Amino acid sequence: MDKQTYAAAGVNIDAATKAKELIAKHARSTLRPEVLSGVGFFGGLFEFKGFKQPVLVSSVDGVGTKLKFAAAVAKDVTTCSDLDNHCGNDILACGAEPLFFLDYMAMGRLVPEQVEAIAQGLAKACREVGCALIGGETAEMPGLYAGKDYDLVGFIIGVVEKEKIIMGKTIVAGDAIIGLPSSGLHTNGYSLVRKLFGETKSALDTYYPELGQTLGETLLEPHRGYYHQLKPLLPLIKGLAHITGGGLMGNVPRVLPPGVAAQFHSQTWTVPPIFQLIQRQGNVAQQEMYRVFNMGIGMVVICAPDDVAQLTQALPEAKVIGEVVKQEGEARVVID
Amino acid sequence: MDKQTYAAAGVNIDAATKAKELIAKHARSTLRPEVLSGVGFFGGLFEFKGFKQPVLVSSVDGVGTKLKFAAAVAKDVTTCSDLDNHCGNDILACGAEPLFFLDYMAMGRLVPEQVEAIAQGLAKACREVGCALIGGETAEMPGLYAGKDYDLVGFIIGVVEKEKIIMGKTIVAGDAIIGLPSSGLHTNGYSLVRKLFGETKSALDTYYPELGQTLGETLLEPHRGYYHQLKPLLPLIKGLAHITGGGLMGNVPRVLPPGVAAQFHSQTWTVPPIFQLIQRQGNVAQQEMYRVFNMGIGMVVICAPDDVAQLTQALPEAKVIGEVVKQEGEARVVID
Repeated sequence: MDKQTYAAAGVNIDAATKAKELIAKHARSTLRPEVLSGVGFFGGLFEFKGFKQPVLVSSVDGVGTKLKFAAAVAKDVTTCSDLDNHCGNDILACGAEPLFFLDYMAMGRLVPEQVEAIAQGLAKACREVGCALIGGETAEMPGLYAGKDYDLVGFIIGVVEKEKIIMGKTIVAGDAIIGLPSSGLHTNGYSLVRKLFGETKSALDTYYPELGQTLGETLLEPHRGYYHQLKPLLPLIKGLAHITGGGLMGNVPRVLPPGVAAQFHSQTWTVPPIFQLIQRQGNVAQQEMYRVFNMGIGMVVICAPDDVAQLTQALPEAKVIGEVVKQEGEARVVID
Repeated sequence: MDKQTYAAAGVNIDAATKAKELIAKHARSTLRPEVLSGVGFFGGLFEFKGFKQPVLVSSVDGVGTKLKFAAAVAKDVTTCSDLDNHCGNDILACGAEPLFFLDYMAMGRLVPEQVEAIAQGLAKACREVGCALIGGETAEMPGLYAGKDYDLVGFIIGVVEKEKIIMGKTIVAGDAIIGLPSSGLHTNGYSLVRKLFGETKSALDTYYPELGQTLGETLLEPHRGYYHQLKPLLPLIKGLAHITGGGLMGNVPRVLPPGVAAQFHSQTWTVPPIFQLIQRQGNVAQQEMYRVFNMGIGMVVICAPDDVAQLTQALPEAKVIGEVVKQEGEARVVID
């Protein structure tokens, strides 16, 4: 048999080494004084100090098949903000601030320049919320990922003082429900969109007057992060639900204590045109739309009625979109 | 157009909900008193207390294409110990003990029973090192993963007191290098093995007298964890290198300070038969073997010569396999 090598089997250690150097260059731009390890050690080391009664809050997320659309129009970098903001919003839902972030990239063929573009995007998104990009794993797996396909996963660790944890436990009937607008689909529902519109470049380059831009531009709008906006207002907030997979129906119940339900009034906000376009294209039932997509609401904030004025003044785009009611029957979320 | 649904596009929210319940059941078996959130909140909450000057140590790892072999013989559960031990060994390399773990599973079609089997395996592996399985993400991504393919990623967070961090900084020429045996390939080099032997069930079921078992049994031996063995000995250890992708050549330099190199004597340990079989089957160059595979050494321990006796007495399988030397020229690792 001819001499076999790892490279001939589709795993290029030299490309991996080059990619690691390129990643390290960008990761260094995110480091905070607490990071003791630099980049490239077995574990990322983060010195933990300055907290009274700290609780670590962690979350892991992917970007889902939004990656496929990003690949079709060569916009890898977009999905980095998606990942970082998705993770950041999840820990923000407990009131936590981000400390550090790790990524996982897996692909069929490791192209150092593509890996660098992703690392650069992740580093930029991390810097925006003061989060250190402390580690990661880049895996070349021929046979598992086809062609230029790749998967991208993020893992975030944040912290909140125990007395400041937000978990919805104090929510009572009569509390107000405020909605913050999403920037589009965020990172959910893309498999359905792919089925309806395809994922060719020409489908994505189609201009829709109602969107005011192409389908691709609308679909690749990055997942919005709410950290900077909400951080100063956390003391006023009783519950936060990040609206991801499952929509309002699936996510709002996660912060509701027993005995109450969320009543939404759908006429209080305008569902953005992209969701109407999807619904029309696929003849999708209204209830299914609310179960799959965020329908224009990216974060739900629950507060006492007395705090509504202060919150909506500080958040000009926010709208009261419902209220907490006593739960009658099974439903935890009602949309009228 | 017929009414479209998310399920028809290949994403089954009901299956995801069922899978979450099954995962939660197993994750609950791992929880420690510090976990405040239960399972299923947006973020996992871990109360952090009892440390003087804590440093958080984090790592992310996958199982690589070992997954393909596991799938071929329906041994999903094996890869769970792989993942947990791979992550655990990485943070152990700094002297850290595990606190909590998050997983990411991505697949083309979500089968709740398969997800449960993986969660059960992860929970078992977590319990073995006292680590809480605090969160995770299960992503159904039709079009990215073909057939029964899936990817599995683990994120671990551990802690070490600042004064007890092991980073190799005190290593000097004359220090001893001790090797701890691996249990096989651990999680590296599987793409090359796939190229040489294929990944059919019949290839994996072939019995090799030199292995004393089938190829599949040998290849699916779980990645060994060194935490329990090494924990009581950490005060004696100057440097630890977890031998993963890159082998001895790639990993030992990560713990060496400037000016020294690692000199290994290959005749001091027996390379297990599986590596000889691979080398013969693929006519792989000796140097390539040491760059791709662990060659029978799963963890390298570096200590002062005076501590060798105490370490090897406590670790009956450990052997002195080399020493730290003054670095002459470029090489950081020499194997004679």
